[in-house]
Amino acid sequence: MSDAPNDGGIKMIVAVIRPDRLGDVKKALARVGAPSLTVTNVSGRGSQPAKKGQWRGEEYTVDLHQKVKVECVVADIPADEVVDAIREAANTGEPGDGKIFVLDVADALQIRTGKRGPDAV
Amino acid sequence: MSDAPNDGGIKMIVAVIRPDRLGDVKKALARVGAPSLTVTNVSGRGSQPAKKGQWRGEEYTVDLHQKVKVECVVADIPADEVVDAIREAANTGEPGDGKIFVLDVADALQIRTGKRGPDAV
Amino acid sequence: MSDAPNDGGIKMIVAVIRPDRLGDVKKALARVGAPSLTVTNVSGRGSQPAKKGQWRGEEYTVDLHQKVKVECVVADIPADEVVDAIREAANTGEPGDGKIFVLDVADALQIRTGKRGPDAV
Ligand SMILES: Nc1ncnc2c1ncn2[C@@H]1O[C@H](COP(=O)(O)OP(=O)(O)OP(=O)(O)O)[C@@H](O)[C@H]1O
Ligand SMILES: Nc1ncnc2c1ncn2[C@@H]1O[C@H](COP(=O)(O)OP(=O)(O)OP(=O)(O)O)[C@@H](O)[C@H]1O
Ligand SMILES: Nc1ncnc2c1ncn2[C@@H]1O[C@H](COP(=O)(O)OP(=O)(O)OP(=O)(O)O)[C@@H](O)[C@H]1O
Ligand SMILES: [Mg+2]
Ligand SMILES: [Mg+2]
Ligand SMILES: [Mg+2]
Repeated sequence: MSDAPNDGGIKMIVAVIRPDRLGDVKKALARVGAPSLTVTNVSGRGSQPAKKGQWRGEEYTVDLHQKVKVECVVADIPADEVVDAIREAANTGEPGDGKIFVLDVADALQIRTGKRGPDAV
Repeated sequence: MSDAPNDGGIKMIVAVIRPDRLGDVKKALARVGAPSLTVTNVSGRGSQPAKKGQWRGEEYTVDLHQKVKVECVVADIPADEVVDAIREAANTGEPGDGKIFVLDVADALQIRTGKRGPDAV
Repeated sequence: MSDAPNDGGIKMIVAVIRPDRLGDVKKALARVGAPSLTVTNVSGRGSQPAKKGQWRGEEYTVDLHQKVKVECVVADIPADEVVDAIREAANTGEPGDGKIFVLDVADALQIRTGKRGPDAV
């Protein structure tokens, strides 16, 4: 236990969101003081059953939807503030809004400066 | 220790597989009750030495192969069942079949409902 | 504590680097005995403020830069050697060189052989 945010540790917040929420999520992250992030185009499915459709007489199944993965590593900003900021910006209230996962990070390094640990984030 | 699957914790299973095994892996995951997943196109290399080839007289090296990364976060389903299901569906017996890694997840949130922890997964 | 590298555990080194440093990073990883890796095309931003530009009279903001994510899981090679090798190969001294994060991996499996744990890496 410590008074430092994240008990002195480093956290990686991984959010899978709708692509059209990325702009608002970036703004929300900057507002809570965690502007740094890595973005990956992904596809995925949640708990809804696959959708069946027809195209020119052929049946097809849509089960993977385009999403965007946002990874945000923080030390000085509490992970919970980052989670809340992403949630607020990504939430539409409809199924498919996405998930947020928080992982512990054992160490970090900033390549240019060689800084290690929380200072590197 | 606890009787709950994954000792009450949340696990992220990260599998790097052959692209043409994705369909079977999705079915296998659904069968063990873990249908939710995130898919990323990646490339990579394992322990085999790089292959050298010739193209129009120029030598080139193939050292990165197209793969697919599947991430599957679970709470109620034991990580080992997910690992076994992916392995069975992804295994061809040839080099390049891929790897599976299991990471601990400290927290989770479902964006639409605001649910936290294992219930969010 | 143990004399084994990484105290007997498995580590995932996640590096976000400039795309044009990937070739040198691959060579550096091979040199330290950790040639296996997974590569993802990503975009991201660090701590520099967004750049504003003009195009045909329209203002636009460049805030996401193309980067490459390299993931390298090791057991027998100390994570610190991998971090140092990546840093040396990725470092240009200019802002935007990237970050390296180290995560603990709870388990691993090689799909072809079924090997588990550090031997699977
Ligand atoms: N358990 C999980 N493991 C890995 N990725 C997941 C998981 N759950 C969701 N995702 C990712 O998040 C994306 C959006 O998920 P989604 O919001 O549909 O989750 P859900 O649980 O079905 O919630 P909802 O009922 O609100 O739709 C998925 O397409 C997938 O990429
Ligand atoms: N240690 C590792 N770290 C990160 N990614 C890995 C690692 N090992 C394998 N991968 C990923 O998995 C993909 C497939 O690996 P591969 O199956 O060739 O592993 P391998 O150890 O060489 O096993 P095999 O001898 O069966 O080929 C690679 O292209 C890479 O993307
Ligand atoms: N805290 C972070 N969380 C997630 N990704 C990050 C983080 N910091 C950097 N990255 C990723 O690394 C890439 C390069 O970051 P960058 O090197 O600009 O970091 P920086 O802290 O601004 O350092 P520098 O001052 O040397 O530029 C970013 O585009 C982003 O993809
Ligand atoms: Mg859903
Ligand atoms: Mg191989
Ligand atoms: Mg920067």
